[in-house]
Amino acid sequence: MAPDAPIATIEAKVIGHVRSAIADEAVPRRRRDMVVDIEVLPEYRAALTGIEAYSHLFVLFWMHKAARADTPMLAHPHGNKDLPEVGVLAARGRNHPNPIGLAVVELIGHDGLRLTVRKLDAFDGTPVIDIKPYDGYDQVEHLRLPAWWKRKK
Amino acid sequence: MAPDAPIATIEAKVIGHVRSAIADEAVPRRRRDMVVDIEVLPEYRAALTGIEAYSHLFVLFWMHKAARADTPMLAHPHGNKDLPEVGVLAARGRNHPNPIGLAVVELIGHDGLRLTVRKLDAFDGTPVIDIKPYDGYDQVEHLRLPAWWKRKK
Repeated sequence: MAPDAPIATIEAKVIGHVRSAIADEAVPRRRRDMVVDIEVLPEYRAALTGIEAYSHLFVLFWMHKAARADTPMLAHPHGNKDLPEVGVLAARGRNHPNPIGLAVVELIGHDGLRLTVRKLDAFDGTPVIDIKPYDGYDQVEHLRLPAWWKRKK
Repeated sequence: MAPDAPIATIEAKVIGHVRSAIADEAVPRRRRDMVVDIEVLPEYRAALTGIEAYSHLFVLFWMHKAARADTPMLAHPHGNKDLPEVGVLAARGRNHPNPIGLAVVELIGHDGLRLTVRKLDAFDGTPVIDIKPYDGYDQVEHLRLPAWWKRKK
């Protein structure tokens, strides 16, 4: 490889895991109200200091149970054939080139290595790769969305 | 390793790169108005189909120039010693366990492999690992933030 060839893959450390008593099958239905814990690895205990000052967080997780075979580049959102087929990067499905989940969650509690959060639609045991506070720069008031987005509900 | 030992690292594919004429040194100062391109790799052209229907996107990128040495678990936000030291996961700095950047950007244009976006505070050549539409579930109206967050401006 040439010295300045672009990198093709990156390697990220798992920093914690989702701990949940909710069965995988129930996650899609319960995603909007489900409360789960994130348990960070002991070496990241201090990195959570002060996080309870925020009401909301972003959680980045690795959807380890998502299919990793060659996924198509176009798909019907939510697998719903009544909705138009769009590029996979133009929807929030589990079929992106990388199975990285991004959730906006409400932070309910912080106790040592544990964060208790609402609206994290991830399975028990899911590896977490980053946690970031949701702050004022992340608030967007007026959004333009595709016509199908409201129809999907 | 035991068959069901938890995974310690994950490997993600680079799906594109930031293309920008702005010098690295100017990025922190210009982050709120800077306009750059994201160029996806040719194999992901179709995955962008329909993305122009959104006004805003999340961009996940790999801060390849960030220090990877043992970073401390506590830091002053923005390196500003007038602000209280907090855990690195309780602020949006470049010193997280993984150098993953998350930006909310305004989508200005889509032309083939290129997305033109505003407010992506990343250097030229930065690898991109995911692009996700920002949708109505990502809007949080009322936030609680640490007292220092408003003081930092």
